[in-house]
Amino acid sequence: MEQQGSSGKGKYKVIGTRPIRHDGEDKVTGRAQYGADIMLQDQLYGHLLRSPHSNAKILKIDTSKAEAMPGVRAVVTSQDFPQGEISAGKKYARDRILASDKALFKGHPIAAVAAEDRWTAEEAAKAIEVSYEVLPAVMDVMEAIKEDAPLVQEGNTTSTLGGQDAKPSNIVNHTQHKRGDVDDGFAKAELVIEREFDTKAVHQGYIEPQNATALARSDGQITVWCSSQAPFWVRAELSALLELPLSRFKVVPMEIGGGFGGKINSYLEAPAVLLSKKTGQPVKLVMSRADVFEATGQASAVHSKIKIGVNKDGAIVAGQAWLAYESGALPSNWGMQGSMCVFAPYKMEHVLIDAYDVLTNTSKVAAYRAPSSPQAMFGTESVMDEIAQELGMDPIELRLKNAVQEGDLRADGPKFPRIGFKETLEAIKNSDHYKSPPPSAPNQARGLAAGFWFNAGMQSSATVGINMDGTASVVTGSVDIGGSRASMSIMAAEALGLTAEEVRPSVADTDSIGHTDVTGGSRTTAVTGTAVYEAAQDAIGQMKKRVAKLWDISEEQVVFEDGAFKSTANGHDPMTVKELGPKLGMTGGPVLGSATVAPKSVGAGFGVHVVDIEVDPETGKVAILRYTAAQDVGTAIHLSYVEGQMQGGVVQGIGWALNEEYIRGEDGAMQNTGFLDYRVPTMLDVPNIETIIVEVPAPGQPYGVRGVGEVPIIPPLGALHNAIYKAIGVRLRALPMSPPSVVKAIHEARKIAEPAAART
Amino acid sequence: MEQQGSSGKGKYKVIGTRPIRHDGEDKVTGRAQYGADIMLQDQLYGHLLRSPHSNAKILKIDTSKAEAMPGVRAVVTSQDFPQGEISAGKKYARDRILASDKALFKGHPIAAVAAEDRWTAEEAAKAIEVSYEVLPAVMDVMEAIKEDAPLVQEGNTTSTLGGQDAKPSNIVNHTQHKRGDVDDGFAKAELVIEREFDTKAVHQGYIEPQNATALARSDGQITVWCSSQAPFWVRAELSALLELPLSRFKVVPMEIGGGFGGKINSYLEAPAVLLSKKTGQPVKLVMSRADVFEATGQASAVHSKIKIGVNKDGAIVAGQAWLAYESGALPSNWGMQGSMCVFAPYKMEHVLIDAYDVLTNTSKVAAYRAPSSPQAMFGTESVMDEIAQELGMDPIELRLKNAVQEGDLRADGPKFPRIGFKETLEAIKNSDHYKSPPPSAPNQARGLAAGFWFNAGMQSSATVGINMDGTASVVTGSVDIGGSRASMSIMAAEALGLTAEEVRPSVADTDSIGHTDVTGGSRTTAVTGTAVYEAAQDAIGQMKKRVAKLWDISEEQVVFEDGAFKSTANGHDPMTVKELGPKLGMTGGPVLGSATVAPKSVGAGFGVHVVDIEVDPETGKVAILRYTAAQDVGTAIHLSYVEGQMQGGVVQGIGWALNEEYIRGEDGAMQNTGFLDYRVPTMLDVPNIETIIVEVPAPGQPYGVRGVGEVPIIPPLGALHNAIYKAIGVRLRALPMSPPSVVKAIHEARKIAEPAAART
Repeated sequence: MEQQGSSGKGKYKVIGTRPIRHDGEDKVTGRAQYGADIMLQDQLYGHLLRSPHSNAKILKIDTSKAEAMPGVRAVVTSQDFPQGEISAGKKYARDRILASDKALFKGHPIAAVAAEDRWTAEEAAKAIEVSYEVLPAVMDVMEAIKEDAPLVQEGNTTSTLGGQDAKPSNIVNHTQHKRGDVDDGFAKAELVIEREFDTKAVHQGYIEPQNATALARSDGQITVWCSSQAPFWVRAELSALLELPLSRFKVVPMEIGGGFGGKINSYLEAPAVLLSKKTGQPVKLVMSRADVFEATGQASAVHSKIKIGVNKDGAIVAGQAWLAYESGALPSNWGMQGSMCVFAPYKMEHVLIDAYDVLTNTSKVAAYRAPSSPQAMFGTESVMDEIAQELGMDPIELRLKNAVQEGDLRADGPKFPRIGFKETLEAIKNSDHYKSPPPSAPNQARGLAAGFWFNAGMQSSATVGINMDGTASVVTGSVDIGGSRASMSIMAAEALGLTAEEVRPSVADTDSIGHTDVTGGSRTTAVTGTAVYEAAQDAIGQMKKRVAKLWDISEEQVVFEDGAFKSTANGHDPMTVKELGPKLGMTGGPVLGSATVAPKSVGAGFGVHVVDIEVDPETGKVAILRYTAAQDVGTAIHLSYVEGQMQGGVVQGIGWALNEEYIRGEDGAMQNTGFLDYRVPTMLDVPNIETIIVEVPAPGQPYGVRGVGEVPIIPPLGALHNAIYKAIGVRLRALPMSPPSVVKAIHEARKIAEPAAART
Repeated sequence: MEQQGSSGKGKYKVIGTRPIRHDGEDKVTGRAQYGADIMLQDQLYGHLLRSPHSNAKILKIDTSKAEAMPGVRAVVTSQDFPQGEISAGKKYARDRILASDKALFKGHPIAAVAAEDRWTAEEAAKAIEVSYEVLPAVMDVMEAIKEDAPLVQEGNTTSTLGGQDAKPSNIVNHTQHKRGDVDDGFAKAELVIEREFDTKAVHQGYIEPQNATALARSDGQITVWCSSQAPFWVRAELSALLELPLSRFKVVPMEIGGGFGGKINSYLEAPAVLLSKKTGQPVKLVMSRADVFEATGQASAVHSKIKIGVNKDGAIVAGQAWLAYESGALPSNWGMQGSMCVFAPYKMEHVLIDAYDVLTNTSKVAAYRAPSSPQAMFGTESVMDEIAQELGMDPIELRLKNAVQEGDLRADGPKFPRIGFKETLEAIKNSDHYKSPPPSAPNQARGLAAGFWFNAGMQSSATVGINMDGTASVVTGSVDIGGSRASMSIMAAEALGLTAEEVRPSVADTDSIGHTDVTGGSRTTAVTGTAVYEAAQDAIGQMKKRVAKLWDISEEQVVFEDGAFKSTANGHDPMTVKELGPKLGMTGGPVLGSATVAPKSVGAGFGVHVVDIEVDPETGKVAILRYTAAQDVGTAIHLSYVEGQMQGGVVQGIGWALNEEYIRGEDGAMQNTGFLDYRVPTMLDVPNIETIIVEVPAPGQPYGVRGVGEVPIIPPLGALHNAIYKAIGVRLRALPMSPPSVVKAIHEARKIAEPAAART
C-alpha cells in the first residue's frame, strides 16, 4: 500500500486517517441489529408461494384451503393491492412484488401467507392452489431479441429509441449515442478490431438475505423494518403501491449485511404490509438463499460487440459498441448506463453506441456495483489489449495515448471536468508491481485493464448538532453499508476541528431526517458527505454569532480557521468548538446545523488494475499471484475503508471473471441456487490486493471526494481476460473464465495448433 | 366543559382540535416500549444494596462474598467512579447515586451487583457486608433547622443567603425577597392574619418505576436506555461523573410511564454504566415500588408562616412568608421557587419572603408538578380565604381586587407581561358551577383557591422535514409525557398548512437532535413548540426559494399565507406544501428545516378552582361533589390533552390535600411504601373534573402557548382546605386532611364548642 498514514497531502487533520469505525464493535460482537433480528410482540411469520414456471398465465388462485389451516392468519395476493386503473409503470412495480395476471419467472411470488410460525406459513403456501397455463419461456438475451421470440410482456411495443413501435418485441429500451461518422472513421483507421463478448448473469452475493417486518396499525400508521440501501425509496414505493401518503409510513433501516446494489429494489416490504394490514399483527418475511438467487435482481447477462479503429500510433479514430442487456421479465434501463461507460476512458472522434434492454423470463435484473459498466467495459478492455498487442505497444502507453482528461468529451457526450485517469495510469506504470518483470514461468502472465464509473449524485440531507461540551453528532439518512458512519464523522470532525471519535454518527429512519436517496452509486461519501459539510458550516455560522457575542464584536469579524474561531478585529485568543461548547447555553442555546443537497454533477472515477496469474492447464484453474489496483478516489476520507472498498470490488470482479454464473437447466431454472454451487471467491482464492490511492480532488465536492466503491469491480474482468490470453494464447470472450471453460479453450487451441497430433 | 370544538377563536385550523394522538395505539395495545422493556443479548440484571439506616458512617464495604457467588459478574461501589479531588457539587451528585462515606437515608444505595439473573443479584446484594457507625438522624424540617440538630452534611456551612457561615447547620439555601417595609405595612393594615402551615412529603406516584439499561462497549462508546424526562441531562451527568466527553454517551429515551418531575434526577443510569464497564455486558436495573418511595425524590415537606395585611376594602398592603423546605440529605434549591410563587397572584406594596432549604435524613427531594408552589400557596390561599371571611367578601371579589395584571410587579420582583389571572377569576365567577348555589346540606360546603406557576424556559431543538409528497416529519428531543408528539405535530401542521395526521412526530435520542432540556416545568409545548415553529419557518423559507424558481419570480415575491405559497408579483394560483412536495426534487432537492431556541421568558399560568364537598363527620372522609378548574393556558394546542392535564393535576392535588403522605415510624423509616398504604385517588374518589380553558395568548410564543401541566395541582390544596373549613368550621392547617385528621379536628372543635358535655 502506497498510503500508510494520512492522505490529503497534509491538508487535512482527520480526513485520510484510520479511526476505529463507530459501528465496529457492535458488528464484530454480533450486537448490531440486522433486519431479521427485529422481534415484535404477536409477530407473525410470512411465506411466499412462488411460481414453479418461468412463464405462465395465472388462471386462478384458490387460497381457501390455506386460509382454513390452523395457525394461518391471512393470505394475500396481488388483488390485495388497491385495484383499479393503474399506469404501466405501477403495474410493473406491483408485478415485481406479487404476480397479477402472469407468472413471469421461476420464483415469481404468487401469494403470501402469514401464520403463527414459519413452518405453518410454509405448509400453507403449499396448500394454495394455482391454475397455470404454461407458456414458452425465453431466458437468453440473444434469443429474446429475435423477432419470433416468445413475448415476455405481450403489451410491450417500446422497441426503438424509447418510442412506440407498432410491432411488439422484448426490447424495452434502446439508447443510442452518435458522434461523427463511425463508418468514415473505421474506413480511415489503420487497424480495426471487432469482437463479440458474452457475460453471464451474476449475483451480488450479499450475506444477508432480504427481509422485511411490517406493522400496520389500525390508526393507519405503518412501520416497516428492513434491510435496504434506500429506505426513503422503499417508503415511496409503499406509498405509491398502497395509495397512501408518505406520512403514513415509517421505514426503519436496520443494519445491512451487504447490498452492492441488490438491496435497492424492495421485494418483501409490501407483502409484509399487506399481511399486517389484514391481520393487525406484525408480520416478518425472510428469504431463503434460493429465493435470493432466483427472485431478487441478478446483474444482467450481456451480449456485446465492440469495434475500435486506431491509427498505427495507437490513437483511436472510431469506436462502435452494440450492447444487449438482460432486463429480466420487467422493464429496466441498464443499457443506458452501460452506454455511458463503455468507451468513457478514451478519446474518440467517431462514436456509435447502441444499448438495448431485452426482456427475458428471469427475475428483473438489478444494480450490482458500477451497474452495467463491467459487462460493457470487459469487451472494450479486451479489444484495447488486442490493439496494443497488434501494435506492439505497452498497454499502459496505448491507454495513456488515448486517455481522457479535463475538457475532453466522454464518448456519450458530456465534457469531463478535472479527472484523474492519466494520473491513475501513471500510478500503475510507476508501481512496484508493474515495474517488476511479469511472471515468466509457463502458463504465467500479466494482464492489465481500466475501469470507469460516473458516480451518482441525487439528494441527501444531514444535521450536525453541537454538544454542550463542544463534541458533536451527525445524522444522515444514508444507510451505512461501506462505512458511512465513520466517513460522515470524519468529514464533520474535519469541518469542526474535532476528532472522529468526538463526532457521534447516526443513521436515521425516514421520519427523523430529510429525504435522502439510495446508499449506492458511490454517491454516499461524496453527496451525503456534502450535506454533512454544509450542515457543519450551518453550525459554524451559528457559532460565529455566539463567539461575536462573547467577544463583543460583529459576526463578520469572526472567522473559523484551523479548527478555531478567530477575531479579525482584536486580540482575542482563538477559541475552539470544544472551548465554545460550554458557553452555548448562555449565548443563545443549542446549535443545530442542517443542510440538504442535490448536486448537479459529481466527480467521476477511474481505476487501473494489473494482475499476475498462473493457469493450471490440467484443471483450468486460474491462480492469482499478485494483484494491484490503482484508483483516483478524489480524496480518501477513511483510508482503511477506501482500501477495503477497492479490495472488495476486486474480489467480486475476480469472482465474476473466473467463477460466478447462473447455471440454467433446459427448463430455464437456475441449478446452482446455493453458495456451494454458486462459487464466490474465498480467502483461499485471492492474495492480498495491493491498493494505490490516487487523489485528484473532484471539483464541486467540499473535500474533493469522488466515491470509491464501484470502479474496482470493473477492471478485473478485462485484466484477467488479458492475462489468461497471454498465459494460454486464447482469448476467452465469454465469462466466466471458469476451469471448464479454460480447459476447453486450451484443448480447442491445441486442436488448432496441433491438428495432426489431435487427429491421430 | 366550555370548550367543545376548536379553540383559538377561529384563528387556527389545527390548533385547538382533538386529533388522535400519534402514539396512542402503541400505548393502548402495549406495543410501546418502556424502559424496562429493552432486552439485549447477554444482558445482566443488577440489584442495589441499600442502607437500612437513616444516617450512618460507612466504615467498610466487603464485597468479596458477593463477588464469589456463582452467577455474579460484578459488584461496584462509589469507589468505581473516577476518584480524586472533586467539587462539593459533584460529590453531592455522586452521593445521590451511590453513597461514599455516609449512608444518608434509609434506602441510600451502597453498592450495586450485576448477575446472570435478578434473583442471584438480589441474593448477592445481601451477601455484601457493610460496617456502619449508626448516627442520630433528623427527619423533620423544623427539627433539622434547630441549632442543636444532628448535622446531615457535616461540612455544610451555607446557612444564610447563599453565603458561607462559620457555623455548620442543615440550612443549605436561603432565598430572600424584600420590597417596601413590611413592618410598616402591617402596622398600617386594618386586618392582619398570620398562620402556620405544614405539608407532608408526598410522591409523584408515577406508575412506572425507575429503570436503566446500559451497554459500555470496549471501544469506549456507552449507550443507556432509560425512562427519563431529561435524557440530555442524564447524558450530561454521566459525562460529568464518569469524566468522559458527551460524545461517548448515547442516551435513548424509552417511553415514560409518568414522571411529574420525579424522573428528572437520574438514579440507576450511572450504576448500570459502572456495572457494564466492569462486565463488558449490558446491565439492567429496575426499582421496586418501595425503592421508588424511599429512594427517589419525594416532594418536600414544608413548614410555612404566611402573614397578610389588608385594608377594610380588601386591598392587600403587606405580605410576609417564611418557608422551610425539606431538602432531603443532599442540597437542593426548591425554596427559591416557592418564594417566586407564594404571593405571585397578588399585588402588594410591602413584601418580605424568606425561603430555606433544610437538610434532613431523607432521600433528596425532587420536582413534583409546579415544584414548591403547592406547599407555598396552600398557606396563602387559606389566609386569603380567612380574610374574605373576616371582611365578608366573596373570595373571588377579594382576589379580583388584588389580582396582578400586565405591568404589575410580582411579589418577588419581576414585572408581569400580559397574563390572564383576572380573566380566569372571571371565568370561574361566570361558570355554571360558581353561579349555582353552594351545596347546603349539613357538612357540605364550597371552597375556592387560585394557583400560579411561572413556567420554565430553557433550551430546545427541532427539525421539520418536508416529504416528497408534501407531508412532513418533526423531530424533537422532548420526551413525550403529556402529549408532545401530538402537540408538536399540530403546531408544525398549523405552520405548514397540513393536517396533524400529515405530520409524523419523532422523539430522538441524544445523538440525533440538538440539545434539548427537560420535559417538565410546563415548558415543552411552549418552548420545544417554538423550536418546531421556527424549524417550520426555516422549511417554509427554503420552500419559498423553490416556488420562486418554479414561478420565475424573486424569493421576496413569494409569501406563505393561509397554508399556501402566493405570489405578490403575478397571477399564479396559490400552491400548497402538498402541491409543492413532488416538485422539490427537481427544484434543488429535499427541504429540511432546523431551529434551536432558548427564550429569555415564557408566559406564566394562573388557575382558579372551585370545589363542592361533603364531609362524613363519622369517618372524616371528604367526598368531592363537584369540581371545576379554570386556567389561562395561553392557547390550547390539543384540547383533550389540555383538559387531561388540568384534570390530572387536580386529581393529584386532591390526593395531596386529602390522603397522601409519607408516614414515618420512630426510626424515621417510611411505613407505607406501597400503593395500598400510600393512597392516591382512584376513579371512585373523584367526579369528572370540569375544565374551563381560558386563552390569553402569551407574548413571545408564536402561538401564545403558556403551558398547562403545573398550575392545576396547586389550587386543590387551598380549595379543599377552604371548603372543609366551611363544612366543619375548623381550619386544618396541616396536610393531608385525611379522614383521621378530619375526625380529630371535628372532635377537638366539639371539645371547644361543647366543653361541659365533653367533660361529663
